[in-house]
Amino acid sequence: MKPLSFFFLAMFVCISVSAQQALWGGQDIKSPEILPDNKVIFRVQAPQAVKVEITGDFLPTQKQETPFGNFDVPGAADLVKNAQGVWEFTSPSPLAPELYSYSFIIDGVKVCDPNNVYMLRDVASVTNIFIIGGGRADLYKVNDVPHGTVARRWYESPGLKMTRRISIYTPPGYEGSQAKYPVFYLLHGAGGDEEAWLSLGRAAQILDNLIAQGKAKAMIVVMTNGNPTQKAAAGEWERGMTKPSLWGDTRMDGAFETAFPDVMKFVETNYRTLETKAGRAIGGLSMGGFHSLHISKEYPDKFDYVGLFSAAIMPMQEVNSPIYEKFDEKLKKQFANAPKLYWVACGDSDFLIQSNRDFVQKLNDNKYKNTYYETGEGHIWKNWRIYLTEFVPLLFQ
Amino acid sequence: MKPLSFFFLAMFVCISVSAQQALWGGQDIKSPEILPDNKVIFRVQAPQAVKVEITGDFLPTQKQETPFGNFDVPGAADLVKNAQGVWEFTSPSPLAPELYSYSFIIDGVKVCDPNNVYMLRDVASVTNIFIIGGGRADLYKVNDVPHGTVARRWYESPGLKMTRRISIYTPPGYEGSQAKYPVFYLLHGAGGDEEAWLSLGRAAQILDNLIAQGKAKAMIVVMTNGNPTQKAAAGEWERGMTKPSLWGDTRMDGAFETAFPDVMKFVETNYRTLETKAGRAIGGLSMGGFHSLHISKEYPDKFDYVGLFSAAIMPMQEVNSPIYEKFDEKLKKQFANAPKLYWVACGDSDFLIQSNRDFVQKLNDNKYKNTYYETGEGHIWKNWRIYLTEFVPLLFQ
Repeated sequence: MKPLSFFFLAMFVCISVSAQQALWGGQDIKSPEILPDNKVIFRVQAPQAVKVEITGDFLPTQKQETPFGNFDVPGAADLVKNAQGVWEFTSPSPLAPELYSYSFIIDGVKVCDPNNVYMLRDVASVTNIFIIGGGRADLYKVNDVPHGTVARRWYESPGLKMTRRISIYTPPGYEGSQAKYPVFYLLHGAGGDEEAWLSLGRAAQILDNLIAQGKAKAMIVVMTNGNPTQKAAAGEWERGMTKPSLWGDTRMDGAFETAFPDVMKFVETNYRTLETKAGRAIGGLSMGGFHSLHISKEYPDKFDYVGLFSAAIMPMQEVNSPIYEKFDEKLKKQFANAPKLYWVACGDSDFLIQSNRDFVQKLNDNKYKNTYYETGEGHIWKNWRIYLTEFVPLLFQ
Repeated sequence: MKPLSFFFLAMFVCISVSAQQALWGGQDIKSPEILPDNKVIFRVQAPQAVKVEITGDFLPTQKQETPFGNFDVPGAADLVKNAQGVWEFTSPSPLAPELYSYSFIIDGVKVCDPNNVYMLRDVASVTNIFIIGGGRADLYKVNDVPHGTVARRWYESPGLKMTRRISIYTPPGYEGSQAKYPVFYLLHGAGGDEEAWLSLGRAAQILDNLIAQGKAKAMIVVMTNGNPTQKAAAGEWERGMTKPSLWGDTRMDGAFETAFPDVMKFVETNYRTLETKAGRAIGGLSMGGFHSLHISKEYPDKFDYVGLFSAAIMPMQEVNSPIYEKFDEKLKKQFANAPKLYWVACGDSDFLIQSNRDFVQKLNDNKYKNTYYETGEGHIWKNWRIYLTEFVPLLFQ
């Protein structure tokens, strides 16, 4: 036997010993399989299972009644078992271009697809993903274009009395250049962290692709952690591998906004940035939209581009922070030297739609120039990716 | 209702609607739970399941017979169902400090723990992990120490005719300094990629902790992709979200070694590095050990520190590349101006143990100064993390 052949065979044995064991349930089947017509087949080998279902955002939604209203949740469908014990489900129709997520439900337990290593964490849930290419969804794919750099760094926040983790995208060409670049501060929602826009939001792919297509300016994108009691994403600081929680760290108490200049100082000290109002944008989703609203009006000379994506816009009379006081007065000051772009987006079935429509009405009543972009659906990452692809081309033009 | 309360309640509904549905199998139980005495409880809610098992590297191994010999594979244990449909298993004894991985087997299907978001991908398998602290395992944890920066960048490789992804760790203080730093090139094995040492190897945590303890010099660690037909890790280039494979991209054909100067050029152009033999180390596991062996002897004036971790050391007469020709002659040349450290490590049940012992014997027969470090167990990440913690403190001293 040739020595290299032996090496590979032995490696194969090391890895596939488990796969050979029924006990281990190791599998070597293809799932998901995207067919040429964009129908998708899902498979799982489960000869001993009694019932296998799939749930995902490509299935028709079903209504869930709650005291707060009816919410759309992903539906489910049954897989069918063949003679070999492989369960299978084929989407009844071709799927439209999009990044989809799904899980299997094996005898009642929602689990990840053992044959798909591509997963996303959203707060404390992990689901599998796949992308149907075409149209806008091609912006979510890694294409053969120049790629920016993504760095996870740590910055000092005297305001929050912490060293905190931060994700920073620098565009292709940044390192080899002496030029100064505009900066887009991109903020996550409740339950998110400095990883959320990169993973769930496909921010690096969207930026790479829009820049390569000439549709967006080369820019630095700064994704900081918006939870002021948290140094970093789950598992990335000394709290350890605890279960992430929406409740544990989400605070809308003004602390993040008050300390935001620490982030800007770090970025402008460590990167070649324009350091002008025209060279700064801020935007975010849900709680991050709330943060963007308040930071941009608290520091009215800093941001010429503001994006509120499904923003948590609410009257603030119940919250005790100087940040939220004198709302109308500060907004008036902000629009006295109006941002070049004040962009508000929301889905028409979002639980925050009315407060967003009301806020836009308020802006219009005051003749505060803004752009409103309303889509279908609700408070979901599909919308936030869409908003990012719409907002970024408008920046720094 | 206070407005913020409404926001959080509505967010809660959005997230927990699914959790309220038995259909979705949403769960809010703690798993794994590490008890004060380091026993660990694993739980999964699966009222409809017939049988639930756990398999993991903390369980007694079992022998698997193959044509290549007997291999140790992780054993399995049964979980027991309580009246609420929650299955549970408690480790019979406290677990020693270590990073452990495990999976559940639900009615015969090996799946991830739905209550543990911490997972690692090894080639095409994803397993859950947890860490029992103490001793060496504290080096694998994120502790409250200064953290380095981890950047994913892209470099030009004219030798491989590609732009390729590369992971680079810069130590705490690098950015604020004008000093030049030594560089450690850290290479993965077959089936791995530029993510492997960071995820499975806990390289950033190990470096942060060893540097903070004063046990390692501040150094740059460069983790490039050792598969010459691959631009990047699975999902990170235009090949898309295909299933990773040990076979698809692993080549030990000399192409990676031949093009390795492209990596060094990129690093030394883009970072403040010492650019001396005394300021460079190279090491790797399995195929990466093979690469380190051949790169260090092919460029004998470049590396004063060489680490072979469970290296794939084999006679190369069957491989056609100038890199592998004149082995003894090149080794002699390398040791004529001997590296300061030539460090060989292997586990005593590794399938490569004999070739490693033979190689060390050959080094000794030729009076080529080396250090041999033999551990228990086999060709596993547990050993490679140990080797990293042992090797790094020896560098650049």
